[in-house]
Amino acid sequence: MSIRIGIYGYGNLGRGVELAVRQNPDLTCVGVFTRRAPETLKTCTGLPVYSVNDAPAMQADIDVMILCGGSATDLPTQTPQLAQYFNVVDSFDTHAKIPQHVAAVQAVAEKARKTAIVSAGWDPGMFSLARLYSGAVLSAGCDYTFWGKGVSQGHSDAIRRIEGVLDARQYTIPVPSALEAVRKGETPVLTAAQKHERECFVVAKEGADLARIEKEIVEMPNYFADYHTTVHFITQEELQRDHGGLPHGGRVIRSGETGLNGEHKHVIEYSLKLDSNPEFTASVLVACARAAYRLQKEGVYGCKTMLDVPPVYLSAKSREELLAALL
Amino acid sequence: MSIRIGIYGYGNLGRGVELAVRQNPDLTCVGVFTRRAPETLKTCTGLPVYSVNDAPAMQADIDVMILCGGSATDLPTQTPQLAQYFNVVDSFDTHAKIPQHVAAVQAVAEKARKTAIVSAGWDPGMFSLARLYSGAVLSAGCDYTFWGKGVSQGHSDAIRRIEGVLDARQYTIPVPSALEAVRKGETPVLTAAQKHERECFVVAKEGADLARIEKEIVEMPNYFADYHTTVHFITQEELQRDHGGLPHGGRVIRSGETGLNGEHKHVIEYSLKLDSNPEFTASVLVACARAAYRLQKEGVYGCKTMLDVPPVYLSAKSREELLAALL
Repeated sequence: MSIRIGIYGYGNLGRGVELAVRQNPDLTCVGVFTRRAPETLKTCTGLPVYSVNDAPAMQADIDVMILCGGSATDLPTQTPQLAQYFNVVDSFDTHAKIPQHVAAVQAVAEKARKTAIVSAGWDPGMFSLARLYSGAVLSAGCDYTFWGKGVSQGHSDAIRRIEGVLDARQYTIPVPSALEAVRKGETPVLTAAQKHERECFVVAKEGADLARIEKEIVEMPNYFADYHTTVHFITQEELQRDHGGLPHGGRVIRSGETGLNGEHKHVIEYSLKLDSNPEFTASVLVACARAAYRLQKEGVYGCKTMLDVPPVYLSAKSREELLAALL
Repeated sequence: MSIRIGIYGYGNLGRGVELAVRQNPDLTCVGVFTRRAPETLKTCTGLPVYSVNDAPAMQADIDVMILCGGSATDLPTQTPQLAQYFNVVDSFDTHAKIPQHVAAVQAVAEKARKTAIVSAGWDPGMFSLARLYSGAVLSAGCDYTFWGKGVSQGHSDAIRRIEGVLDARQYTIPVPSALEAVRKGETPVLTAAQKHERECFVVAKEGADLARIEKEIVEMPNYFADYHTTVHFITQEELQRDHGGLPHGGRVIRSGETGLNGEHKHVIEYSLKLDSNPEFTASVLVACARAAYRLQKEGVYGCKTMLDVPPVYLSAKSREELLAALL
């Protein structure tokens, strides 16, 4: 019998979950839950659409609810609320608030005897795992995270808010020389700005002052001021044609040493190159939904993260198959 | 109170464990157990040396015994035998026999209420984890493992057995074009020989027939015949000077697709570049010793592998610290 998945929220991530579930024969999608009027929403693959208000009554029909809302305002309230009724998975990614989110979900899920896996995805998520494993193994060493090349939604939005800008896409790009130094095991001290540069593709309104827009971008505090930033003005057609996707990726590198006097260097690198950031994130959430379901069946209740989950629980294969095939 | 480690067997791996424990303040080494006469063995850091016959009587002094013998003849008997008395960790790496080894250790450890983690290291071990995670997330895709550049002990030994050879070192090297194709997400079908080439550095006896030795190497079935193999004759001094270390490494790459019609490609790559194969393996064993100790304290008995262990158990940091720092 397959694991029945509900999708709560239907943006890029929700669509990604819909498509990811189809790639996993042990899972089925029951439907999408939306705050919009259900009849106005049509899903990619024709899933049933329900109002979020119908969710609590469908407790018996859904094994795991995957929450696909945003971290700023949706998930902090939705995940604890839904953990009363369902095993839940989310991608809460406001790094500084994760402990507080885990505590809030823990309180509800434990009481309801449900299992939650929160902050799943690639960062937090797969990158967090890479940091944990490599740090546990190479206890003397330094960690580096490089993001990109990829589209940063937050930075793209920040450019769009500038007067005279119609649309924009911002790429975060690792600085090649910084990456090279880290890979060689040189353990340099690097700020985020020394590790990354920013490339912006901007569509301006006709007659807008391009020099002023460029200045506002490169001098924008927090977002761009500390970084080497390049601005290109292009047409809306060019933006759609050449920058329509949501690629992303990055790498976590740990450089460490062993031996009597640290004479042996070791470099562990975990890297992702993703054509679609939301679809990859969705694929991680779906594997976590399987794990949440299994953990709850075994009576392991409460709020977990990917760092807590025994790896075998994420795979569709049995432990016996995995031991025989992967070890 | 620190976790008390015993080292069972004192070759390259045992020395690696001795040094790795020093890098982890939550662990202490109680001593080394050897089949040799203890008084003939002096350890790198002056650890006490005991006879293997003394081990069972020291049950109360040791929290985890790390087995540092070979997979061919030592571990298949030693690990089940010692699991009667101790939590144990080993690096059993005869891939085809792992399920059988797990079953043998499980029977003993469960009965003795001890916890074992077997087949730890980097392959099996960290590479197995990379395969599991990336396969669970990208369910539609292909896996590739490339080994090297690094010294293969088995292949070096095979060359040494040829008449007229004094010493030898064999490097396994990934074929750059194969690696490039896989990284681009091309999912080619590749045999081990299409992914790797072999480079051999050989010290021959004076007057030996070099052409005959080279022919015997490149035509050796299983080891070399299917591979592009290069042979260099060098002096013993050159071998020691330029090829004295035991570097190794490799990468596990999964290339997969998502979307409505597989239109988005994703590549996950996990790579290791190691100056010292045995010291890195030892560092993994030491992290697993910490996990075995904690699992046993919580009543999780029996034989585990790295695929079964919740990641947080491997780290010296508390779960709270890890959630705050890594997610």
